[in-house]
Amino acid sequence: MKKSDVVNTIFHNDIPHIPQREKGLAFAPTNIALCKYWGKRDTELHLPVTSSLSIALPDKGTMTTLRLHDQPIDHVVVNDQALSPESAFVKRLVEFLDLFRPEKKWYVQIDIHINIPIAAGLASSASGFASLVLALNNLFGWELSHHYLSILARLGSGSAARSFWLGFVEWHAGVQPDGMDSYAEPLDIEWPQLCVGLLTIDASEKIISSREAMQHTVNSSVLYGNWPKKVIQDLAIIKQALKVKNFPLLGGTAESNALTMHATMLSSWPPICYFLPETIAAMHRIWALRRDKLELYFTEDAGPNLKLLFLKEDFDHVSAQFPRMEKVSVFDS
Amino acid sequence: MKKSDVVNTIFHNDIPHIPQREKGLAFAPTNIALCKYWGKRDTELHLPVTSSLSIALPDKGTMTTLRLHDQPIDHVVVNDQALSPESAFVKRLVEFLDLFRPEKKWYVQIDIHINIPIAAGLASSASGFASLVLALNNLFGWELSHHYLSILARLGSGSAARSFWLGFVEWHAGVQPDGMDSYAEPLDIEWPQLCVGLLTIDASEKIISSREAMQHTVNSSVLYGNWPKKVIQDLAIIKQALKVKNFPLLGGTAESNALTMHATMLSSWPPICYFLPETIAAMHRIWALRRDKLELYFTEDAGPNLKLLFLKEDFDHVSAQFPRMEKVSVFDS
Repeated sequence: MKKSDVVNTIFHNDIPHIPQREKGLAFAPTNIALCKYWGKRDTELHLPVTSSLSIALPDKGTMTTLRLHDQPIDHVVVNDQALSPESAFVKRLVEFLDLFRPEKKWYVQIDIHINIPIAAGLASSASGFASLVLALNNLFGWELSHHYLSILARLGSGSAARSFWLGFVEWHAGVQPDGMDSYAEPLDIEWPQLCVGLLTIDASEKIISSREAMQHTVNSSVLYGNWPKKVIQDLAIIKQALKVKNFPLLGGTAESNALTMHATMLSSWPPICYFLPETIAAMHRIWALRRDKLELYFTEDAGPNLKLLFLKEDFDHVSAQFPRMEKVSVFDS
Repeated sequence: MKKSDVVNTIFHNDIPHIPQREKGLAFAPTNIALCKYWGKRDTELHLPVTSSLSIALPDKGTMTTLRLHDQPIDHVVVNDQALSPESAFVKRLVEFLDLFRPEKKWYVQIDIHINIPIAAGLASSASGFASLVLALNNLFGWELSHHYLSILARLGSGSAARSFWLGFVEWHAGVQPDGMDSYAEPLDIEWPQLCVGLLTIDASEKIISSREAMQHTVNSSVLYGNWPKKVIQDLAIIKQALKVKNFPLLGGTAESNALTMHATMLSSWPPICYFLPETIAAMHRIWALRRDKLELYFTEDAGPNLKLLFLKEDFDHVSAQFPRMEKVSVFDS
């Protein structure tokens, strides 16, 4: 099944192409997975092998503004810098837009403002594709629910399916070949005491994309076979930990889930290692602090940077240990 | 089944206790596994889940000298330093010696000279227990073959089973509950061009022993379930690579095997991470050199140190990149 088939299913073969306003505009937050998405059951539709669970960072993400224009080409400007039509990023966006304009009746000026490092394991593509889909929905008056927008954004980047809500979000793996049951939805849980801190170790663009790393791991790691089992266990534990607000259980399970994802990469061949020396140094410090009874955990995505997890009451202690850490809003904390 | 049952089987319930000479003396080399031993099917007898394959380092290892004495206690001296009878190391040695003296008829002065860092992931216990068994064999005139000595040394430390030969050695996992089919034997292969370099990153004693790390991984890592499958594949590939002298195949498979072992540890909980920042820095340098077409690989045991694998023709190049590396003899190279 092709992406365009999914789009046609959602729009009943009639994709609106008349703009409803001068510009389409939307912000989507980035999200950090506490239980990771790692491996696709369908590489075309970005259908995951497993479900996953994330937390949104309301102040970090992407604002996308779309304006139709008369030139037969899309212009992409990221943080006030025009990108070449030949860049991989623009090509990926154009390919995505093409899904919604089979007859090439419109082209756009795309203004993207993103306040997180791009392609550095901070889910820039998740907030990027979610905000793009929201902006299209706004521009053309699609009036689609977040449920369908989640499915559409997934066609651009898997984890974008989770970037339509604040708080905790679960993306269901689904089982259908067309992926109509593979969408995200928010959990009805708030945890104002929960804190996330970004420990940026290297903000430069990673050598191998998450997408490539994921596929390479699925293809070449013997250990990957047990990853789905790990996720099923971790997801159930994390949901239980959220329900009863058991922070050590949440933090420990999220950390173990992240380390296990990186473990599958190390066991692929050629190996993929997003750890930098400073990543490992920070991990050892976190473990030492934990031996000293500080409830501090981390998660790590496809990049060298760590996201620290702790409770509000420990902020001063954590901050003293990691002065470079940037505390980010999660709820109103 | 208990260790003493195995000893009694081998000695037909009649363990020689009359010394045949004034002192028993023997050297055993350490060995570096190219295909790792990681996980026991029997924790009492140190029977491994999988077979493994190593290469001996003829100049690195342990010389053990045993002298009977009249005091009712064993004295242990390591590198000219007397150890406390209360130390974990001495207790482990005494417990092992007790297997061979059920009636406590003799005690010894044990002089150990070891020229590798102890308990730093350099297989010190492998050469230690092998040399101890050889020295006992020498002192009491057991006249046992290396086959049986391999089985006896395994009761002290699993990988000691492999330290009775030079060159490449395979330790068969075996299937019998008494482990009489779990012994090592040498492969009839020489490879004078093969070089091993020790890149010592931290020679201090590790926080968690290989033995504990192994058991903790088996008990708590979901990924461990596929480790035996990985070893079966890697062992076959390594034996083929040795046969046809395909160095990139040997190096790549050994490296992947080591990384996968460490991956199972990272995915255990609490996680075990023997990587230090400098370990990761060295790995990234090795991978960068390999992208530049240098055939350089590594393996890593339960410690932060790397063992570099390369061919003699590349020694100058490797040495320039890693001036601190200590090249060790493998064959006559």
